[in-house]
Amino acid sequence: MDRWLINGVRSSALAADDRGLAYGDGLFETLAVRAGKCRFIEFHLDRLTESCVRLGIPFEADNSLRKEIAEFIAGEVHGTLKLIVTRGKGPRGYAPPDPAWPTRLLGFSATTPATFPHMGVRVRYCQSLISRNRMLAGMKTLNRLEQVMARAEWAHVPAEYQEGLMLNDRDEVVCGTMTNLFMVRADGLYTPALDESGVAGIMRSQIINIASDMQIELKETSVSKMDIRTAEGVFLTNSLIGLWPVQEVEGQSYGIPPLIVQVRSALAKLGVQECQ
Amino acid sequence: MDRWLINGVRSSALAADDRGLAYGDGLFETLAVRAGKCRFIEFHLDRLTESCVRLGIPFEADNSLRKEIAEFIAGEVHGTLKLIVTRGKGPRGYAPPDPAWPTRLLGFSATTPATFPHMGVRVRYCQSLISRNRMLAGMKTLNRLEQVMARAEWAHVPAEYQEGLMLNDRDEVVCGTMTNLFMVRADGLYTPALDESGVAGIMRSQIINIASDMQIELKETSVSKMDIRTAEGVFLTNSLIGLWPVQEVEGQSYGIPPLIVQVRSALAKLGVQECQ
Repeated sequence: MDRWLINGVRSSALAADDRGLAYGDGLFETLAVRAGKCRFIEFHLDRLTESCVRLGIPFEADNSLRKEIAEFIAGEVHGTLKLIVTRGKGPRGYAPPDPAWPTRLLGFSATTPATFPHMGVRVRYCQSLISRNRMLAGMKTLNRLEQVMARAEWAHVPAEYQEGLMLNDRDEVVCGTMTNLFMVRADGLYTPALDESGVAGIMRSQIINIASDMQIELKETSVSKMDIRTAEGVFLTNSLIGLWPVQEVEGQSYGIPPLIVQVRSALAKLGVQECQ
Repeated sequence: MDRWLINGVRSSALAADDRGLAYGDGLFETLAVRAGKCRFIEFHLDRLTESCVRLGIPFEADNSLRKEIAEFIAGEVHGTLKLIVTRGKGPRGYAPPDPAWPTRLLGFSATTPATFPHMGVRVRYCQSLISRNRMLAGMKTLNRLEQVMARAEWAHVPAEYQEGLMLNDRDEVVCGTMTNLFMVRADGLYTPALDESGVAGIMRSQIINIASDMQIELKETSVSKMDIRTAEGVFLTNSLIGLWPVQEVEGQSYGIPPLIVQVRSALAKLGVQECQ
């Protein structure tokens, strides 16, 4: 990132004793800064607070954090804000310190606006599996080595694929390394259930809300490679890209059915400028 | 830790952009410093180098690292050395930077010698499950949130239990939160296979070598709660404690069969002073 703020201080120096490093004992959020504002910030802060409750990290995203973020990105127009909350420093050993003093880190990088991939993106299946654990499912924890290993599979040919899909040990397709997955079928939208793995993305939750508003049937369910093969259309979402139609999954080509165009327009109306 | 050395510099300030924090993209080793020396250092360094190969982190534990460690602990008698290697800094995103410049951290804490628990320790079963993923199994990665959550289960009554056992979603007992597990049965020793989860501990590997030398049958296999219930004896190992006999697992009591005494004596002969 271009610059960091750690516990309110302009610094990029994290204490080596921090449990975020030692154990990945923490969470993060990646927010799109667009036209000087953090997009969907309340959704991000709600998810962060809820995840902190699940992990027992005594941190609540409150007005002082909102103020800190606003001051930190003041004057910026377009970029990425990374918000990390860890359980803080502690003595050696897995037992959480009591009381814990969480560490909060804000990082900002200026970026240039991306162009929408009108033809769609190319996607592969990763060999690296994603593990199942209900206790951690849905959260964006700092334990992301599975995603790193999956992403590394095509790091030598980065232009070949824009994303890789991850499966669990039951041959269920769970998510992309950095995106959530949706399929268009004759009877509506499908997206993998995230009760055992994966991150419940903020852009994913926007799609779910849009589907509800537009009375589009949306099922959170088990998704197989065969389901994807027989889908009318496939798209990916995350907070920074908005929505990417998928052009190809390992040789299988897809068009962009009207439902994707509708959902994309609805996202654009919610302020996702990448979808305009 | 009392003090840190990061990439050869006396500092406890890690760059916030380090992938060790962002993704748990790294590994660690915990070494017992006893009588001024790092116990079983070659085993730790071999495991670290092998794990770096598996993760694609371009780091080899070589003579310059041995020298750095020796200088770092010079003058110390008894304590714990923590060695962390991460994939280093990188831009945002899961893709590993190429080339990567790994970060190495050495941390040292002085400790006082522990007394051997002659009566054995009390152990519980954790509700938090350990996930299965062959790609990461056996390694001591920085993704340790499952162990943190398991250990947190009895953080409010720390004196009640000295360790908690973790099961996977198939009801197999895999390990303790910070230890490896062994059972004594009529036909020899049993320890959970670690091909799907868990850390292949250095003290565990010493036990395996001892069993081989003493011609004790040792099976690495699937272990159930029922297997543990019907065992003659149970013990736990890690690099700092050496070997702990288990006195009780949730109401089930165990004695200390002669085989545990023999193994313990063999560890003591290898320099594990906690077992004397």
